[in-house]
Amino acid sequence: MISKEDHTGQFMRGLPFFKGLPDADLDVFMQAAHIRDYHKHQHIYMQGDSADNFFVVLSGWIKLCRQTVEGEEAVAQVLGRGDIFGEGAAVFGGSTYLFSVEAAESARVIEIPGSVLKERAKTNYDILARVMNSLSRKMQGFYLENEHMALMSAPQRAGCLLLQLSSNMIGKGGTFSFPYDKSLAAARLGMKPETFSRALLQLKSAGVTSKGPEIHVENFQRLAAYCCGNCSAEKGECKGAALKNLGESPCADKKVQCGRF
Amino acid sequence: MISKEDHTGQFMRGLPFFKGLPDADLDVFMQAAHIRDYHKHQHIYMQGDSADNFFVVLSGWIKLCRQTVEGEEAVAQVLGRGDIFGEGAAVFGGSTYLFSVEAAESARVIEIPGSVLKERAKTNYDILARVMNSLSRKMQGFYLENEHMALMSAPQRAGCLLLQLSSNMIGKGGTFSFPYDKSLAAARLGMKPETFSRALLQLKSAGVTSKGPEIHVENFQRLAAYCCGNCSAEKGECKGAALKNLGESPCADKKVQCGRF
Repeated sequence: MISKEDHTGQFMRGLPFFKGLPDADLDVFMQAAHIRDYHKHQHIYMQGDSADNFFVVLSGWIKLCRQTVEGEEAVAQVLGRGDIFGEGAAVFGGSTYLFSVEAAESARVIEIPGSVLKERAKTNYDILARVMNSLSRKMQGFYLENEHMALMSAPQRAGCLLLQLSSNMIGKGGTFSFPYDKSLAAARLGMKPETFSRALLQLKSAGVTSKGPEIHVENFQRLAAYCCGNCSAEKGECKGAALKNLGESPCADKKVQCGRF
Repeated sequence: MISKEDHTGQFMRGLPFFKGLPDADLDVFMQAAHIRDYHKHQHIYMQGDSADNFFVVLSGWIKLCRQTVEGEEAVAQVLGRGDIFGEGAAVFGGSTYLFSVEAAESARVIEIPGSVLKERAKTNYDILARVMNSLSRKMQGFYLENEHMALMSAPQRAGCLLLQLSSNMIGKGGTFSFPYDKSLAAARLGMKPETFSRALLQLKSAGVTSKGPEIHVENFQRLAAYCCGNCSAEKGECKGAALKNLGESPCADKKVQCGRF
């Protein structure tokens, strides 16, 4: 059980999925919630498992993936603090999860029984609309990945990922550490690790330098100008913008409107 | 208005979205429905338009796309007879469409006011679940495209499209005509037209020959064995299988379970 007064409760109330919900609804979710820790590579659930819960990432990184017939792994998404998963399967869409999910790094997760969400959603259109919006954003995310693979170069796609990973940073530019293995970042972008490394090197012309896990972006705006012209994302559709709204686009004069700006 | 006794009414009742719905619900939709014809390249709606309707494709082909900042077009989906679109935007998810939609070939479309669906959905969990399932399948479709781009070769992806386009054909193999421009097929797969042409040529080793718009597949099972090993689709997730269920997988001994089989 989570108290609405403590840090975790406050954090939950601030997430788009829960924000503005009446206390009565929030209380039901928080009372039914459990916090669980997972170590790196530990499975949370497997594709095809009965969809009993939905989840909020409290800290760490979570990997969603599937296996091909030949046994190769395809990384569908990497989720971090504030992301939710399992909400669609728990409420609708049959009774099994579509993806296998494991901790990509050690992770802390809030687990809420799907039955609680489902019961509440059945009589509450607002909650249904939140589940639907969440699913719609995920669909949009998969679509954008798709579009990126079709229209953007490998360095542009690597740069887009860097913009997403640094979207909570303040300032014109900055240095940050890769929060999970670079090989996972490569897999998430559907690239071989060596292609991803090469792409990072090629980003030098856009003001990006990397040394081991450390990434330095000279100027986020310059990187966005390099990456975002071949993307159709509108404000609010891009992860960067979802995490932080930087106001008026500084790239407007270049017709570049990265979701970040 | 569509009569439930005529061909169109019968066709609608057979679609997954409407199948098994009580007559009272079906009647409401059919009474509010209009049939509209669109000529090739005619717009049905634009990304960002107010989401007033949801649609069923009665015949022809419909293209969903978006424009990048630089003005390049990204083809998100090509839909055919029996597919629905606009259902999510019409019911939830804000009030605007996420994609621009136009007729890729001359097309006939059933148009149902979103307000009718929305009103009915508000008090009917079954209808909501259908909208949600439909959206979930679309998310899954975008995810699979994604995975294909990451893990499959261009010829494998072209072969996958051929399997989807021929999924209603009976027999071990067969000849069919490309139902829309090959350049659109290439764009839908995120390939340049010349890459797509080369991919079709390379499919010779999997028993595929093409001449102009005409495609001959010697043996669907052989083509599936060539394509589907690098895909994670399970039965029912793949368009081929959605249109036609061929029963027990003939590829089971090869560990290949294309959605088609």
